[in-house]
Amino acid sequence: MRALLPEVEFMSSVGVHGFALSLDGYGAGPNQNLANPLGAGGTALHEWTIATRTSQRMFGQDGGASGVDDDFVARGFDNIGAWIIGRNMFGPIRGPWPDEAWRGWWGESPPYHVPVIVLTHYARPALVMHGGTTFYFVTEGIEHALARAGEAANGRDVRIGGGVSTLRQYLQARLIDTLHLAVSPVLLGGGESLFAGLDLPTLGYACRE
Amino acid sequence: MRALLPEVEFMSSVGVHGFALSLDGYGAGPNQNLANPLGAGGTALHEWTIATRTSQRMFGQDGGASGVDDDFVARGFDNIGAWIIGRNMFGPIRGPWPDEAWRGWWGESPPYHVPVIVLTHYARPALVMHGGTTFYFVTEGIEHALARAGEAANGRDVRIGGGVSTLRQYLQARLIDTLHLAVSPVLLGGGESLFAGLDLPTLGYACRE
Repeated sequence: MRALLPEVEFMSSVGVHGFALSLDGYGAGPNQNLANPLGAGGTALHEWTIATRTSQRMFGQDGGASGVDDDFVARGFDNIGAWIIGRNMFGPIRGPWPDEAWRGWWGESPPYHVPVIVLTHYARPALVMHGGTTFYFVTEGIEHALARAGEAANGRDVRIGGGVSTLRQYLQARLIDTLHLAVSPVLLGGGESLFAGLDLPTLGYACRE
Repeated sequence: MRALLPEVEFMSSVGVHGFALSLDGYGAGPNQNLANPLGAGGTALHEWTIATRTSQRMFGQDGGASGVDDDFVARGFDNIGAWIIGRNMFGPIRGPWPDEAWRGWWGESPPYHVPVIVLTHYARPALVMHGGTTFYFVTEGIEHALARAGEAANGRDVRIGGGVSTLRQYLQARLIDTLHLAVSPVLLGGGESLFAGLDLPTLGYACRE
């Protein structure tokens, strides 16, 4: 992570963990809407993570699979001091907030347990949830959001949750240190493509395996 | 495989085997030319297959790795009665053939050992090589090429070798029965995208794993 401002060194690592893509490169299916927030077929992208012990515990359930998938899911929560998510990942509402009724997809105790910066064009007061999660709504763009997340993380790491548009913006700005992708054995045929028009090697990224 | 002509049933299975894609979905890198027939960085796509015992034996070498990669490479030659390849896979020459000097990338004894149909817009006499490979140059389009390959395969299967453009045409025409992809841990950033604008689920394809 290079300095955001000349005189300030950004101390956190910025990572994306277990970001699910279809075999044909989509992070969400076509025709996203209220009933299908992940687009047509998009939930199939996340079956591998939902099945893990770590995810089940987050939903308050016992059981779930251990193994390599679970290791990756668990690692994605390790030493994370703040998240950044796009507004569409926070909720289905577009345009100005009609009111403050929408409080995220995750109920009153979201699985983050740290500050979550929500990228949006529409200001809204911070939203304090149970269990340590507070949503902060940042309207000043991705660099400012990252600076806020870095402060909030207080030396721990920043995780960028998604979705595709948020990732693409941070990749394009070369602000991501590590990106872990999970290619799911599913074809979506359309939707939000992570790679289209994004020349990652030219941006300085390489596959580390 | 459905009938190509109403009264003729096509007996061969049509498959693509071990087709290498980069993580970002390219089957060849950007800026393909004589020195880089696979485009910038494109050879990295094929390292996994070159390392296998089956490939090494084809190059007349001992050794090479066994295991799952080798199993897939070997399976890709099993019961194949004919190949179809695009002209760019046969050689770097574009436009009309200047003469008959170019005889493929593979020397006098190519690793096919069966008839190989080469898709081209420019007619050329068949080219009989050592070891059972004969290149046939077909100018009447992909359906005709497949019919010719089916005849030549004589009950065995047809393998479509590539490249990306050839695959896309056959996928679009719904003429491929099975497609085995090998995602290589490399980013190319540009080049020939297999999936861009190709809606495989709508064409009737699904991931079988």
